[in-house]
Amino acid sequence: MLFFTQCFGAVLDLIHLRFQHYKAKRVFSAAGQLVCVVNPTHSLKYAPTRCAAAQASTEQDILPPCHHHEAVHDPQLVPCTCPLFSCPWEGHLEVVVSHLRQTHRINILQGAEIVFLATDMHLPAPTDWIIMHSCLGHQFLLVLRKQEKYEGHPQFFATMMLIGTPSQANNFTYRLELNRNQRRLKWEATPRSILECVDSVISDGDCLVLNTSLAQLFSDNGSLAIGIAITTSKAHSSEAEM
Amino acid sequence: MLFFTQCFGAVLDLIHLRFQHYKAKRVFSAAGQLVCVVNPTHSLKYAPTRCAAAQASTEQDILPPCHHHEAVHDPQLVPCTCPLFSCPWEGHLEVVVSHLRQTHRINILQGAEIVFLATDMHLPAPTDWIIMHSCLGHQFLLVLRKQEKYEGHPQFFATMMLIGTPSQANNFTYRLELNRNQRRLKWEATPRSILECVDSVISDGDCLVLNTSLAQLFSDNGSLAIGIAITTSKAHSSEAEM
Repeated sequence: MLFFTQCFGAVLDLIHLRFQHYKAKRVFSAAGQLVCVVNPTHSLKYAPTRCAAAQASTEQDILPPCHHHEAVHDPQLVPCTCPLFSCPWEGHLEVVVSHLRQTHRINILQGAEIVFLATDMHLPAPTDWIIMHSCLGHQFLLVLRKQEKYEGHPQFFATMMLIGTPSQANNFTYRLELNRNQRRLKWEATPRSILECVDSVISDGDCLVLNTSLAQLFSDNGSLAIGIAITTSKAHSSEAEM
Repeated sequence: MLFFTQCFGAVLDLIHLRFQHYKAKRVFSAAGQLVCVVNPTHSLKYAPTRCAAAQASTEQDILPPCHHHEAVHDPQLVPCTCPLFSCPWEGHLEVVVSHLRQTHRINILQGAEIVFLATDMHLPAPTDWIIMHSCLGHQFLLVLRKQEKYEGHPQFFATMMLIGTPSQANNFTYRLELNRNQRRLKWEATPRSILECVDSVISDGDCLVLNTSLAQLFSDNGSLAIGIAITTSKAHSSEAEM
């Protein structure tokens, strides 16, 4: 009996996900975009020391943030950039993607324009929604984080990081777009390199920031659909055009 | 001597304003937009009771928020909608604009697309930057407010209100755009009617919200340039298009 109840629950969950997927698709599918349902993950550990070291190294736009660590011998190695865990892994920048996929089970999506559908927005902070996005010959890490910068007042922060160096990141522009209830919010910026810690980007507030009330206005049945587009940054060279 | 010192100060101020105007124009002038320098004003009084009454009345989409006040006899009268002062004035909706211009010295600008250049963003909260905008046969009130929703953490809130009824407001879409340092933030929404109190719109967070750090990224030498465009809301009927 318990087995059948669980099966029924699982079927209901599937129907619910399918329904959310359909609703997001209805809003965003005009351009034939891929909708990806992303479930939340609680941040297990926050490692400020690693981030500080990583950030210091990127000022010189060189690879090895890890040479600040005593244990690292090869200056070509970078630490694991997964914002969820304080992971002891270190490796070359070229294998960060496969580490994130295999060890941290972060999905990767293809396509210049996708829809990131974050579920269960009501979950308490700190919570992260993470996905990798492959396009224009590079891989990007999209992080949506619910965090209490001011105690008792959670906010949502969304940013895109290039899995590459800061100088490579300067060649791209990413756009995050929310569109619901006759409201539209767009954020466009140059992605940061994952060598600059995602925690620093969020604490600097240099990303899309949503108060809870605004997040609720844009979310539908507890899920937030974010349209994502990446382009090469030629269009950004002139700030004059509106 | 004092006179000459003051004159010199005034000339310096004029040069500074001219310089800010020029810089904003350089960023936004591709479309030949009008740049308007808006100085801040400290909110002198906050009148929550009037706002609550006004908001209650607009749920029925009728004009007279004031019929909740004991002193009002004519149901066609509306209270002064200036968010800066608790003004005892009451009059018909059609003369609100002339009251705001004459009594509260709020400037009015013509044109479908203008640039609102708010100066002295560093001033402590609460501070308002206010202007009226005339286009498409209607007048709109643009309010940028610096307010501490969470003590010690000022934020900026920007919204556009139609000087008209809620049903008239539904015919329009307004867009606020910030564009600087390879970052762009756009907010599009249906304007609210001034019969719905601006304080409620801001406390609901249903507007463009900027943390101080983001406002600093977009501001230049203490001034924030906001591109404003108003269109009829046909384009909003389909949320499908990205």
